[in-house]
Amino acid sequence: MLEKKKIPKSATSRLSLYLREITRLEKDGKEKISSAELGDYTGLTDAQVRKDLSYFGQFGISGTGYDIPKLKRVLREILGKDRMWPIVLVGTGNIGSALLRYPGFKSQGFVIKEAFDIDEKKIGKRYGDVTIKDIKDISGIGSNGSIKIAIIAVPPDSAQDVANTLIKTGVKSILNFAPVVLKVNNDVTVRNIDLSNELENFSFILSSREA
Amino acid sequence: MLEKKKIPKSATSRLSLYLREITRLEKDGKEKISSAELGDYTGLTDAQVRKDLSYFGQFGISGTGYDIPKLKRVLREILGKDRMWPIVLVGTGNIGSALLRYPGFKSQGFVIKEAFDIDEKKIGKRYGDVTIKDIKDISGIGSNGSIKIAIIAVPPDSAQDVANTLIKTGVKSILNFAPVVLKVNNDVTVRNIDLSNELENFSFILSSREA
Repeated sequence: MLEKKKIPKSATSRLSLYLREITRLEKDGKEKISSAELGDYTGLTDAQVRKDLSYFGQFGISGTGYDIPKLKRVLREILGKDRMWPIVLVGTGNIGSALLRYPGFKSQGFVIKEAFDIDEKKIGKRYGDVTIKDIKDISGIGSNGSIKIAIIAVPPDSAQDVANTLIKTGVKSILNFAPVVLKVNNDVTVRNIDLSNELENFSFILSSREA
Repeated sequence: MLEKKKIPKSATSRLSLYLREITRLEKDGKEKISSAELGDYTGLTDAQVRKDLSYFGQFGISGTGYDIPKLKRVLREILGKDRMWPIVLVGTGNIGSALLRYPGFKSQGFVIKEAFDIDEKKIGKRYGDVTIKDIKDISGIGSNGSIKIAIIAVPPDSAQDVANTLIKTGVKSILNFAPVVLKVNNDVTVRNIDLSNELENFSFILSSREA
């Protein structure tokens, strides 16, 4: 059993990057990789790679590098990717419906199992295996507490209410596309995808250069 | 003239948050706000708000708080939102086409002016004012160097080539949805939106709790 609790949360994004790159390299037939190479592929330093991978024991064999299949297996286990994660999506507008059509999630072990909307024109619509349900019926998903991950893609004014409802059903992790700061208890994790915020970062930098 | 260069890049995301919240509050008829209130709306501390806003002079009037219209005007100028920013989008699959339909950008001063794809079935399709063009014709956008911001929503294998081409046309800022680390020179800014990476953060935390 790996001692996951010792790995700092801040390392997770980098572990994801390592897993992505070695999965790609394994497909290309590569079996070993050095920390310097892995750093090069991920834009990180050699030292950072070695530090991150040291959290879960000895993989490096001096001179030959890390064993890719072994490293992949451990990274998958650490990142909880040794299983499928069901997801509930609320809001099936432009962004939400794109996510329903997006094939990339399933191959990564994430499956949108339930989708809800408030708009009668959207309720009943099918995307693959998923039929959009009425938001009023959302409490039903909590009957067995099996869905821990939610995606919120509703307008900002209703996002907090939706979050509160989802948390009542047992959701512990929320990917939030609504441009609003959600207030949640400590046991719930929220990650925000704020596209306007990202673009404003650019307009700030670009207009600073002109100044 | 504001001295934008003195504001640290790390503050930009927070400045965006402040602007978003005070714009919303202004619509509700609010005219003044304290740093504590603004912190509460954005999930930041009172001290952080005061520090960030201190970069561009004195707004706080002790006891009554910041003047919302004035603060909004300065934040908009600092974030380069006192104008429209044209954007070029490459890749019009699930994510790219959702962005073309997404109304939120334009209201924020960002307009997708050009969209390119490699798929003949997509080329020629119209989304509002934008007609999808053949990727082969992308170099044409550089004729006047007016587009500095790009969104890449292509498969990972072609993302680096697309980035290189865009940079040649004069693009300086790239919002990258492709799950790959782009290699660019120092004068180009890349921000990555990696949805699988965000979800892996959740599966890591959720499976750690079980351990």
